[in-house]
Amino acid sequence: MLLGVRWVLRTQNYKCIVKCVLMQQQRQQQQQFYAHKHNFSMAQIIDGKAIAAEIRAELRKDVEAFKATGHREPHLTAILVGNDQASETYVRMKMNAAQDVGISSETRRLPATTSEHELLDIIDTLNKDESVDGILVQLPVPDHMNERKVCNAIVCEKDVDGFNVFNVGRMCLDMKSMIPATPLGVIELLKRAGIDTFGKNAVVVGRSKNVSMPIAMLMHADGRNETGAMDATVTICHRFTPPKELAKYCSMADIIITATGVPGLITKEMVKPGACVIDVGITRITDPNTGKTKLVGDVDFEEVRQVAGYITPVPGGVGPMTVAMLMHNTFTAAKNLAKINKS
Amino acid sequence: MLLGVRWVLRTQNYKCIVKCVLMQQQRQQQQQFYAHKHNFSMAQIIDGKAIAAEIRAELRKDVEAFKATGHREPHLTAILVGNDQASETYVRMKMNAAQDVGISSETRRLPATTSEHELLDIIDTLNKDESVDGILVQLPVPDHMNERKVCNAIVCEKDVDGFNVFNVGRMCLDMKSMIPATPLGVIELLKRAGIDTFGKNAVVVGRSKNVSMPIAMLMHADGRNETGAMDATVTICHRFTPPKELAKYCSMADIIITATGVPGLITKEMVKPGACVIDVGITRITDPNTGKTKLVGDVDFEEVRQVAGYITPVPGGVGPMTVAMLMHNTFTAAKNLAKINKS
Repeated sequence: MLLGVRWVLRTQNYKCIVKCVLMQQQRQQQQQFYAHKHNFSMAQIIDGKAIAAEIRAELRKDVEAFKATGHREPHLTAILVGNDQASETYVRMKMNAAQDVGISSETRRLPATTSEHELLDIIDTLNKDESVDGILVQLPVPDHMNERKVCNAIVCEKDVDGFNVFNVGRMCLDMKSMIPATPLGVIELLKRAGIDTFGKNAVVVGRSKNVSMPIAMLMHADGRNETGAMDATVTICHRFTPPKELAKYCSMADIIITATGVPGLITKEMVKPGACVIDVGITRITDPNTGKTKLVGDVDFEEVRQVAGYITPVPGGVGPMTVAMLMHNTFTAAKNLAKINKS
Repeated sequence: MLLGVRWVLRTQNYKCIVKCVLMQQQRQQQQQFYAHKHNFSMAQIIDGKAIAAEIRAELRKDVEAFKATGHREPHLTAILVGNDQASETYVRMKMNAAQDVGISSETRRLPATTSEHELLDIIDTLNKDESVDGILVQLPVPDHMNERKVCNAIVCEKDVDGFNVFNVGRMCLDMKSMIPATPLGVIELLKRAGIDTFGKNAVVVGRSKNVSMPIAMLMHADGRNETGAMDATVTICHRFTPPKELAKYCSMADIIITATGVPGLITKEMVKPGACVIDVGITRITDPNTGKTKLVGDVDFEEVRQVAGYITPVPGGVGPMTVAMLMHNTFTAAKNLAKINKS
């Protein structure tokens, strides 16, 4: 790095370079301070993109082996109601991932004016269709529909999002079930990054039913049961946790998992040196200087990485894991349905 | 009290009385210390027995009014498999409470050798029986039965224990459902004792699926949703929480709810002055001096009451609430079924 700086020195403004070198030295001193005090330097970045790619490669192999034993290609059907841009993007990413791992897929596009009854009829047809293994309805659905009714309409066996109340109940009872892809992705990230959770202090920031609640459940529950949960002591913080208390709980945590959609909520001062910080938040913000938009998480990444032991970036952290685990769920559904049809 | 001591003085051994008076003075000084330091004295005892009696009196009135509008008496059927003594006692208490509030009841006693299939058949018959509103199978069932299968066999509408996976899922999604009687009793105790939980720090010690998990869920979830939950920041501690960490979390808590069955687990040093301590634990122990058995909770009651602001005794705390809330659930089932049958 310093060599590079010296090279630049020959061609650039002197003052600017001195400032750059000084900043670099300051940063190195900072790192050395932590390295000295806590026996580590900058946080290790948990590369969700790389881990997700690893999972997808494994899945590709497994799907190949599944087909080699005479089974048809697993199939995922996504239903997209209306024209929400973010939903379009998410569904496209899922369909690409399906193709990548050898799962056939289809997107049913329905106009925003579709009635709830029509949607339920389509789900019913897909439930009965033996060529379909996984069904997902991209949320949110238009306001005139009851989201809960829609989620419950998908039969448990094909409910690859794990939002059916029956799957939720099974998960909360530590029983085998379809676990929502994002919480499953967080757990898989922790496992593959080798983060010890047994008897450790974890904080889950947020209490949403599709993301935070399942994370809290999987983090605290008994690893000896069917969900193979993480046995951590878990504190659930949420919008009504006073900021001072949130900071206190976070500073005690070995693992912080945040899923609030509040950019910059988790700051350096709140993080215990060496802690593992998993950022599930994802918010699109506009840079006031450039006017360009970018995705950010709940964590002040640049600051927190100086203290944490492990950290996930946004984007490239939990996001790719969600897509990979959805494929995992679809393949699980295909295997289960193949077993049911055989018996 | 001192008057009484003086009266005893005339009739009893002098030395003993002096000791008694000194102890009393010491205790008063201790109380004054806390009264001075924390602006309160001994913990206020939350009288579960009295609150349960209040709830039962209200229920009695409501059931009377329900019958006065032409409905038949609500009916609860309990199934008791085998001869477990504790189970016998629990079922008897429930049946007495039913009679007390005007709910008719019946106990089906089945031999321990009953097959799972036979039990499921009986449940199926009760599910279809329009004269039955609530069904409960006293747990534990004999080892040759699958407890989960038995719990799921009771239709949700009559599942007054709230153990059916569908009811569990609904509860975890903050939807109206049958909530297990003990967790519901704990929440009702807090509400009736006027304990503020909004944004407060709560610790739930234990992670059992029938008691602690629902308590953690109801304590942290959103009060604006259908379960009317308590909006506290909740830490879930369990057998793998190191003792030092348990003590740390408890000492930060405004509310401690413990349900472990480990007598004396919660000591004075762990409790923040003024905190509310709810003891769900209940263990029968033998007094090594007298050889007699007695019921104790998880909390070192005599010590903790000197620090806490509110405390429940064992027995006479959560126990009577469980029975009262089971009656509440049975009456709710009767009202719901009456509505369904009418429509």
